[in-house]
Amino acid sequence: MTAFDEGLLDPATGAAALVGDRALLTAMVDVEAAHLAALAVAGVVPATPGWDAAALDLTAIAEAAVGGGNPVIPLVGALRQAAPASVADAVHLGLTSQDVLDSALMLLAARAIDAAADPIGRVLHGLAVQADAHRATPVAGRTLGQQAAPTTVGLRLAVLLDGVTRTWRHLDGVELPLQLGGSVGTVAVLVDLLGVEGAAALRADVAARLGLAARVGVWHVERSPVVVLGTALATCIGALGRLGLEVADGARTELGELDLALGEGEGGSSAMPQKQNPVPAVLLVANARRAPGLAATLIGSMLALDERPAGDWHAGWQPLRELLRLAVESAVLADRVVADLRVHPDRTVANLGITRGAVHAERAQQVLARVLGRARAAELVRAAIGEPDFVPAIRAVAVAAAVDGPTSDRLADVTTVGGPVGLSDTLIDAAVRAAEEAR
Amino acid sequence: MTAFDEGLLDPATGAAALVGDRALLTAMVDVEAAHLAALAVAGVVPATPGWDAAALDLTAIAEAAVGGGNPVIPLVGALRQAAPASVADAVHLGLTSQDVLDSALMLLAARAIDAAADPIGRVLHGLAVQADAHRATPVAGRTLGQQAAPTTVGLRLAVLLDGVTRTWRHLDGVELPLQLGGSVGTVAVLVDLLGVEGAAALRADVAARLGLAARVGVWHVERSPVVVLGTALATCIGALGRLGLEVADGARTELGELDLALGEGEGGSSAMPQKQNPVPAVLLVANARRAPGLAATLIGSMLALDERPAGDWHAGWQPLRELLRLAVESAVLADRVVADLRVHPDRTVANLGITRGAVHAERAQQVLARVLGRARAAELVRAAIGEPDFVPAIRAVAVAAAVDGPTSDRLADVTTVGGPVGLSDTLIDAAVRAAEEAR
Amino acid sequence: MTAFDEGLLDPATGAAALVGDRALLTAMVDVEAAHLAALAVAGVVPATPGWDAAALDLTAIAEAAVGGGNPVIPLVGALRQAAPASVADAVHLGLTSQDVLDSALMLLAARAIDAAADPIGRVLHGLAVQADAHRATPVAGRTLGQQAAPTTVGLRLAVLLDGVTRTWRHLDGVELPLQLGGSVGTVAVLVDLLGVEGAAALRADVAARLGLAARVGVWHVERSPVVVLGTALATCIGALGRLGLEVADGARTELGELDLALGEGEGGSSAMPQKQNPVPAVLLVANARRAPGLAATLIGSMLALDERPAGDWHAGWQPLRELLRLAVESAVLADRVVADLRVHPDRTVANLGITRGAVHAERAQQVLARVLGRARAAELVRAAIGEPDFVPAIRAVAVAAAVDGPTSDRLADVTTVGGPVGLSDTLIDAAVRAAEEAR
Amino acid sequence: MTAFDEGLLDPATGAAALVGDRALLTAMVDVEAAHLAALAVAGVVPATPGWDAAALDLTAIAEAAVGGGNPVIPLVGALRQAAPASVADAVHLGLTSQDVLDSALMLLAARAIDAAADPIGRVLHGLAVQADAHRATPVAGRTLGQQAAPTTVGLRLAVLLDGVTRTWRHLDGVELPLQLGGSVGTVAVLVDLLGVEGAAALRADVAARLGLAARVGVWHVERSPVVVLGTALATCIGALGRLGLEVADGARTELGELDLALGEGEGGSSAMPQKQNPVPAVLLVANARRAPGLAATLIGSMLALDERPAGDWHAGWQPLRELLRLAVESAVLADRVVADLRVHPDRTVANLGITRGAVHAERAQQVLARVLGRARAAELVRAAIGEPDFVPAIRAVAVAAAVDGPTSDRLADVTTVGGPVGLSDTLIDAAVRAAEEAR
Repeated sequence: MTAFDEGLLDPATGAAALVGDRALLTAMVDVEAAHLAALAVAGVVPATPGWDAAALDLTAIAEAAVGGGNPVIPLVGALRQAAPASVADAVHLGLTSQDVLDSALMLLAARAIDAAADPIGRVLHGLAVQADAHRATPVAGRTLGQQAAPTTVGLRLAVLLDGVTRTWRHLDGVELPLQLGGSVGTVAVLVDLLGVEGAAALRADVAARLGLAARVGVWHVERSPVVVLGTALATCIGALGRLGLEVADGARTELGELDLALGEGEGGSSAMPQKQNPVPAVLLVANARRAPGLAATLIGSMLALDERPAGDWHAGWQPLRELLRLAVESAVLADRVVADLRVHPDRTVANLGITRGAVHAERAQQVLARVLGRARAAELVRAAIGEPDFVPAIRAVAVAAAVDGPTSDRLADVTTVGGPVGLSDTLIDAAVRAAEEAR
Repeated sequence: MTAFDEGLLDPATGAAALVGDRALLTAMVDVEAAHLAALAVAGVVPATPGWDAAALDLTAIAEAAVGGGNPVIPLVGALRQAAPASVADAVHLGLTSQDVLDSALMLLAARAIDAAADPIGRVLHGLAVQADAHRATPVAGRTLGQQAAPTTVGLRLAVLLDGVTRTWRHLDGVELPLQLGGSVGTVAVLVDLLGVEGAAALRADVAARLGLAARVGVWHVERSPVVVLGTALATCIGALGRLGLEVADGARTELGELDLALGEGEGGSSAMPQKQNPVPAVLLVANARRAPGLAATLIGSMLALDERPAGDWHAGWQPLRELLRLAVESAVLADRVVADLRVHPDRTVANLGITRGAVHAERAQQVLARVLGRARAAELVRAAIGEPDFVPAIRAVAVAAAVDGPTSDRLADVTTVGGPVGLSDTLIDAAVRAAEEAR
Repeated sequence: MTAFDEGLLDPATGAAALVGDRALLTAMVDVEAAHLAALAVAGVVPATPGWDAAALDLTAIAEAAVGGGNPVIPLVGALRQAAPASVADAVHLGLTSQDVLDSALMLLAARAIDAAADPIGRVLHGLAVQADAHRATPVAGRTLGQQAAPTTVGLRLAVLLDGVTRTWRHLDGVELPLQLGGSVGTVAVLVDLLGVEGAAALRADVAARLGLAARVGVWHVERSPVVVLGTALATCIGALGRLGLEVADGARTELGELDLALGEGEGGSSAMPQKQNPVPAVLLVANARRAPGLAATLIGSMLALDERPAGDWHAGWQPLRELLRLAVESAVLADRVVADLRVHPDRTVANLGITRGAVHAERAQQVLARVLGRARAAELVRAAIGEPDFVPAIRAVAVAAAVDGPTSDRLADVTTVGGPVGLSDTLIDAAVRAAEEAR
Repeated sequence: MTAFDEGLLDPATGAAALVGDRALLTAMVDVEAAHLAALAVAGVVPATPGWDAAALDLTAIAEAAVGGGNPVIPLVGALRQAAPASVADAVHLGLTSQDVLDSALMLLAARAIDAAADPIGRVLHGLAVQADAHRATPVAGRTLGQQAAPTTVGLRLAVLLDGVTRTWRHLDGVELPLQLGGSVGTVAVLVDLLGVEGAAALRADVAARLGLAARVGVWHVERSPVVVLGTALATCIGALGRLGLEVADGARTELGELDLALGEGEGGSSAMPQKQNPVPAVLLVANARRAPGLAATLIGSMLALDERPAGDWHAGWQPLRELLRLAVESAVLADRVVADLRVHPDRTVANLGITRGAVHAERAQQVLARVLGRARAAELVRAAIGEPDFVPAIRAVAVAAAVDGPTSDRLADVTTVGGPVGLSDTLIDAAVRAAEEAR
């Protein structure tokens, strides 16, 4: 069998090793092994075989999967063959294919999230450091593409940081339950074997061995665990995607406010020698664009009929796995982005000058409005916006309107660039604190 | 202006009154009013106007919204006109359109979830009662459309119940934060007016007045609050949709295991006089099919550029509002479904007889395997499946194989229909308990 | 009943009048009337009632729709009441609710597409005129946010134009078939009444009266007509969205290459007096962000069970109708954008200077490579990119490398800004021609 | 590098060989080779290298792809190394990565659609044969899960057939254009080299060599070709999914109207020995559930900024490729389903008896209504529906109401099962004819 996907269209971030087919097969073996180990504790089998998941013929199992529509059936055959006779009959005893595949996917999720913790930790820390360092760096706040009012680079980074912190905490807190219900979710065969208490204990034991949550319930067709996981992955991929979006945008030739210190062989183009493409940022955006469609398929799988639906369960495997891949990739890419991120205050300041001061109009108007009333202030501001340079114009206007000293001072204050803006320090501090707690 | 949507394509469940345009406009007024009230506490304005949201000209505001691309701009104009002169200037002071619209949508969400609590509570209770009542009612467990092994109606309902309980708890626990950051999220104008502490206090006060969460952060472009809310709505709509799916399927003419006790004028057809369509169940499915696409749009809005993106923010309004509508509708429809739900044990038992006992093959095989080994047991079971009636055949086979008395008894046990199956009672009890706690 | 949606969250573009509830109700009446008129031709009824769709009580019908789950059932009741006794019994004879609603939605689509033809025609013409006018206006071609190589404003507009032309032609060519199959798609009742030929003739007559395609097939559950329509709408909304995206981006404060000549009261902000938001462009983007999720729901409705599925049919109504709304809105918004679009060649030229000539590196390298070989040319170009000004540097380098006169001329040529670039004139001419043909 | 996806979660249908990474790499080589061959014709290079795509180190290319964010950059390096010195410099001359990847994906699409033609041809033929064979086989028409009125198995299959025919014809007719525009879509480098006519001729030559459409336009950021292809794939996957849905549903234990003649090792379960799962039908449904989310991502990619967007282009690669995989898989699975499909008329007839005749109520009522009026007929039918057996009851009622002989005959006719129903023969004939034409 030819491999379908060896990473040609996805960056080499190690996701394949974590959540690729071999990793999934290993996780399935881990589930079957944990089940056997629990049966051994229950006295059903003498011992457990030390299966070598790496020795399994993945290709043969994948090819044989088409008969029953899932890979567990041929896997169980292979595992029975690789087990001592005294144990072979107990392999998969009381389980159904879905128990193994659902649990293995949850295990894969646990491992993927675990592996993402390090790069995400660095992202949180790195962004926090930069947000703190740039708390006084002025930059134009932009809405609908237009410069709106000044803000700080620090606050902009803090809001990005907030997104990563919150969505990562959300993802990291998602419950990853064991699936173990047998053919139709009754656990009947294991109860036949071990009684009600025995079967319940075995379920708890298997969950503990795998590090999965030991729910009392079964979720064969109550797919909210998968949906909650999948949407949390997509949301986190989205927050990391926004980091990429902001960096790629800040790195635009015309803005130049941010860029990545790229290494040799990075960011090159097949045609244009002068280019320095912010590649990891671009790929973060790409991943985030793919996540919603995958999550939507998972949400749709809530409509699961009977004790196992004819297709809807199967439809969820690849989207969930792909979201895990994207999450792992995005964590690694974001780590690279944050490590290489450079802020260019000269450009943020220069860009802030484009409107020749009109970017201060909102605050100037409010200051004047307090003494002149809103209508009159608006009129004066409108006039000053028409002048070549807003700041001297509005100050002249204020003088003409004979505003008092404090108002005049305040007007000077709100039209001067630099330092914290509004609540920016408070907001940055809170974001930094939350990020450090989430690491 | 002609109304676009008066409910012709959506059932009359009261959702329009809760989350329709007028309700949204009212929520926007509530946000502006809370902001003014907090300014009054801060000593900026003498008192607050008692605006009558119902008196606002919705049509005029909607028509004027096209100029600036959102309805807040004309609303603020109308509110200033309706305020006393001493207050007019302070209306919307330091706010931006997004503050008002985002907060109003969160307020709408809070109200919609609040309104859903009652019908959802009845759904939880009603399903719990039915799950308990049918804990011994046998029914075929089905996988991929095929009868697989017996289960109980009680367990099937308990799994449905679990889905509603978990997704509702998740939804009910979603944080609904106030948005209040001013034009670019710095809160600069309010800090100019009240100082850092004063502005922070005002934000907290506004949140408290509206019953929204008082985050320190701003989320203009950190859209995870919207995504977390939207996906929680979609997941809950999915769990309710599955209730509809199971009921509509159980009510199929050929199954007849469930149906709805429909009233006069319900379930009729425009063409077929004999039909009794399980309409509310069907509409639950329809809503659940619509939710993933809407949620996907929200997830995509994570990629928000700058301090307000040029379109991505706007793209999220209707999907979020539509998910609120579907959630409210589905809660009401589910309430009706559960109230009218009838289980037909005669049909579940009759259907369980279709395979002439082969539905017991899994458990019979496992019982025999313990004494005969897996291979031999499988062979005997395969033979018995070929016979006209599985149960007597497998028992005869056991006699011929001279299995011991306890095995024979156990074989009789696992091929007899009725009573709890496996862990069904445990699972039902847990689901019922969780449901009662979630109400 | 409160209206759910009066346009508060969607711009006032007339879409409600075209595809809102009242328009849909009217279309349903038109379907029933065409059916009756065809029955009159067939001699079944003496004449047809002149129903006044505007007089129907939309609210009452919407409220009654919940009983049967669709609005056709109460509508038929109302139409029978409003018909003379000699005709009443023949109203809806042989039809089913789905016939009426599906056909009415197709009729709505026909009317929406028809109404979009005018604004789209102006968009095509306006873009063609601008593409032609700016065929020599230089602008930086950008890839991954980086200036890559020069192109022309004309070509950029031509590619936008191409998108609108192609997707509009695709949409305009979509077959909009009548649905008329009776309760389960057999047309049995009408065949009972009129015979096979008579029933076939009646179907053709109804289609002709409504201006819908007269397919031999029925498509109750063969939903490709809806999916083909819905995806064509979404694709066209996407092409118009890209127009908005380009305009909103070109209008960014830092680029300033494009903007909209906004009128009084357009583009304002609730907080920032100096802003001129390119609102219609922004709304085009917003619409395009919403289309994929709606289209996905329609694609999913291909999985329709039986002769009418329990929910999947219902799930498609609103997404299709919403796509029609967005398409109509986007056509009107795009018309406004194109009418108000201004190109600023001073800014495109200034921006093209930011890289100090390095934007010419690709073509310079290829010119040199023809005489010096690729490796040597790349080396020289790399060196020149390091210099303060690329163009003199690379020419100096060429002199030093003693390239021949023609090469030197060509080098001068490819590093000079202005005039057509590559195939730009050919591509613009083709796009303009196609657009004019599509109007 | 570990392969990410070797087919563990997707059936072994040969899709990997057709559209997997190796096939894509080969297609990219084909694009570069066609470009070189055309350059040879144009006299730029002496001859073309006979690259062996199979000898390329896929793993190394995939790993190196991360630097520039796409695999073309390392591929070009490898191809230059594998080319004679006289040719090496001309490799990729005037192209950009996107030209190669976009064109290769179109080539992959052409090959996938070509490969699907055979199995789809068999599906069309096989369904046509079965539709024809079962034109008189009665079966219950069902709406919203309820038996509504009789139809025929032949018509049901004809509607399925219609779906496959129409969506396949649509897919097969999609234009698959060459992408060849150079770095920013101007074709500037090739025009520098060959002049305007020469470059245009080269583009046409490359397209002809690859069997792709030779558009005058470029579509770097005018993504409608990808969207039209992707949505056509999704729609066809949907039509094939509906085939799976109907077969899996007809094979339900309680219906038994359809099933698959499964071979050894097919349809087995890991737990339940008696089961015969309609696996290929189930997988068809699964594929169709995944298609909408993938298509949505492609539709979203219409919003492509500049001359190549920072992420949105990249985001489309995998969804398009995955849709190609699903389409190929679904064609093969559908072929298997149709080849193994068995209809069970005994069960369709038995199921049609469940309502004890009430399924005939609609037509009976219409027959009576013609002589008794609608109100009186409805009353009689309602009474007969209440009787144990509808058919004798309604006939008795007719006698009591003294309907005339022809009406009585007609009543007998419409309540008798068997033979064509309504327009069924016409509809079947049309569907069969269209299918045979589409093969």
